[in-house]
Amino acid sequence: MAEKTVREEVQRIAEEARAASGALAQTSAEERNGALAAMAAALRSHAEEIIAANALDMEAARKAGTKESLLDRLMLDKGRVEAMAAALEDLVALPDPLGRVQDARTLSNGIELERVSVPLGVVAVVYEARPNVTADAAGICLKSGNAAVLRGGSMAAHSNEAVARVLADAAASAGMPHGCVGLVASTERAAADELMQLHGVIDVLIPRGGAGLIRHCVETSKVPVIETGTGNCHVYVHASADFDKARAIIVNAKCRRLGVCNAAETLLVDATAAEGFLPAALAGLAARGVTLHADERASAVAAARGIETQPATEDDWATEYLAADLAVRVVDGVDEAIDHVNRYGTKHSEAIVAEDEAACEAFLARVDAAAVYANASTAFTDGGQFGLGAEIGISTQKLHARGPFALDALTSYKYVLRGSGQVRA
Amino acid sequence: MAEKTVREEVQRIAEEARAASGALAQTSAEERNGALAAMAAALRSHAEEIIAANALDMEAARKAGTKESLLDRLMLDKGRVEAMAAALEDLVALPDPLGRVQDARTLSNGIELERVSVPLGVVAVVYEARPNVTADAAGICLKSGNAAVLRGGSMAAHSNEAVARVLADAAASAGMPHGCVGLVASTERAAADELMQLHGVIDVLIPRGGAGLIRHCVETSKVPVIETGTGNCHVYVHASADFDKARAIIVNAKCRRLGVCNAAETLLVDATAAEGFLPAALAGLAARGVTLHADERASAVAAARGIETQPATEDDWATEYLAADLAVRVVDGVDEAIDHVNRYGTKHSEAIVAEDEAACEAFLARVDAAAVYANASTAFTDGGQFGLGAEIGISTQKLHARGPFALDALTSYKYVLRGSGQVRA
Repeated sequence: MAEKTVREEVQRIAEEARAASGALAQTSAEERNGALAAMAAALRSHAEEIIAANALDMEAARKAGTKESLLDRLMLDKGRVEAMAAALEDLVALPDPLGRVQDARTLSNGIELERVSVPLGVVAVVYEARPNVTADAAGICLKSGNAAVLRGGSMAAHSNEAVARVLADAAASAGMPHGCVGLVASTERAAADELMQLHGVIDVLIPRGGAGLIRHCVETSKVPVIETGTGNCHVYVHASADFDKARAIIVNAKCRRLGVCNAAETLLVDATAAEGFLPAALAGLAARGVTLHADERASAVAAARGIETQPATEDDWATEYLAADLAVRVVDGVDEAIDHVNRYGTKHSEAIVAEDEAACEAFLARVDAAAVYANASTAFTDGGQFGLGAEIGISTQKLHARGPFALDALTSYKYVLRGSGQVRA
Repeated sequence: MAEKTVREEVQRIAEEARAASGALAQTSAEERNGALAAMAAALRSHAEEIIAANALDMEAARKAGTKESLLDRLMLDKGRVEAMAAALEDLVALPDPLGRVQDARTLSNGIELERVSVPLGVVAVVYEARPNVTADAAGICLKSGNAAVLRGGSMAAHSNEAVARVLADAAASAGMPHGCVGLVASTERAAADELMQLHGVIDVLIPRGGAGLIRHCVETSKVPVIETGTGNCHVYVHASADFDKARAIIVNAKCRRLGVCNAAETLLVDATAAEGFLPAALAGLAARGVTLHADERASAVAAARGIETQPATEDDWATEYLAADLAVRVVDGVDEAIDHVNRYGTKHSEAIVAEDEAACEAFLARVDAAAVYANASTAFTDGGQFGLGAEIGISTQKLHARGPFALDALTSYKYVLRGSGQVRA
């Protein structure tokens, strides 16, 4: 598509979302929940059409030699369409994030002040392969009274278009304003870049995808960006650790799912615990197919037991592998561990394993991350696990919302003041 | 200064602030309050030195033909230094915004979850003429455990340098980490632009100044920006209004202080109220020296009473005058008023004057602004008036914090999870 046409398409969809956002903010929770239920029903009744559109994407991706793991992320079948529908229905049951009175006071001059939660307005979500994000993002935005502007990856273009059309039609039939679920069909880079220019039309832009996408958004966007999902997470095993707990935690944090942002990428171990802890831990990880990138002290312990390691480089400390790789480093105590985490971490999820309470509290207080754990796996960083419900990502920045970016994070607030003619002296 | 040197200076100060932020986040409220008291005392004991530095700025500004109102904003005397010191002491009395447990739950797996407030980290403030901002921003950042990187305008360079040096020395003597109050001495534009590049070092950038400065930051910065202080505010007089209240409110909102962001810039009046309300209201405003930019219907009412008006253009609806000017428009009811406000407003402070409750509630619900008022002056939008204490600006964006940007808005939070070996299934 010509660049001018792409820009016009993006502007039109964003302006329609802007126009819809005013009416959407005035809808009741019942109306929005009714629309979510209708959207879920529509996904089910149009499942075949959606799966047929997905088949076109799958065929093109196979022809292009796409690797199996990506093809799996792209694929939709009856079960996955049903899962998208069920996720929309799960949103219905969550409490309404709008209209909450967060503060209420009568000022000394008699004015009654309230701080009330309101939608952000227009939320743009820029994402990559998985077509289920189209339904998830549309649903969470609608539940929170926000108009959504969705822009998925080119590989899933037919799937996204089919899902978005079904959802938008169902929302409109259920009385939601036209334009409240918009999909930018152009998958050219120019489309995403144009979205990022629309300061004043779009209130927030949420990239969901790899570090490259997120960096590009941060560097380019005039619309405020929420950084999500880069997780170079650490598990630190203190000298006082229960080694059985520690082994279970590092195996879970590394191996439960390799490609998720809360997976551990580096294991830090106190020097005094290295001999006692590392051999069985590293053997267990190696047996699960994990390649170990070890510093000198850790590799010496491993080599003495015949466990193979690669030498770790500076790059390994800074790498989010999202794969069956783990960096391993021996440190001299909790201060060095905290320094390492704060230097190389991405402020996502960080864990200490220790029976010593002072060590735990030092780590929890001084590590700068969205979620800090003592004696638990980093794998728990998730909206559902935290009791927050569906999330749109894990925020690794400190502004607005940190950690699971769930319904409440998709709201702002306004001060409502009711007076009887007061003026300021 | 050469551009390379400027960049190096900015990077050094920002890195020092980053390094200080870790230790600062661990200080107790007592320690930070002690430092604020020491900073206040130091301003008083160094008042002469600060006033002497200010005299250099004043002399240069006078030579450059600076207008009187700007000279007044720049000027420091004993009283103003005392006011800066007293403002620091006022911060001591405010509650500590850090370490607040905002949520605490035991998850079903036994993990104890807490959400605890923490500092943002490093806060950069870019501002223009007033040297008191140096002390205000340094104080509010220190109170909230944030390292501050301050960059004032060239006109106040000597004043800012003197104030910042006194404050930094006093903070260090009171045990605060080196680098927690940093001033970028270079007043070249390159210095501010370099600050905006330091994503990952600086956590948030707050511009305080005119619309041009704020737009430049939004368009340039890779560091998240909080937009503050652009206020194209409206007072809407509904058909049901008590005209005496309405006159008092528009006079207060327009004339109390002309140059502030919560001042009214447009008066909207229902057609059915125009004859009854406008003559006395416009005469009162004109008598206070306000130039009236009126649409056809308003100017007809004014002309019939011999009140002079200018014809309003499309530009007038969109202009934040910050001066003795007011746009005046006759509208046909609350819907048209809301549409006008949402189209031309800057989401700052908006007021309706009406005795009809339904009209008030429609305006309060549907106007999209940080503060919405029924029957009170927009002049109340202020951290102190809202009971929030000192503020660093009025946020007109919806992310993170809206309205008065006070101590709580200078915090983020982290999730702290304490387990006993839990792993995720």
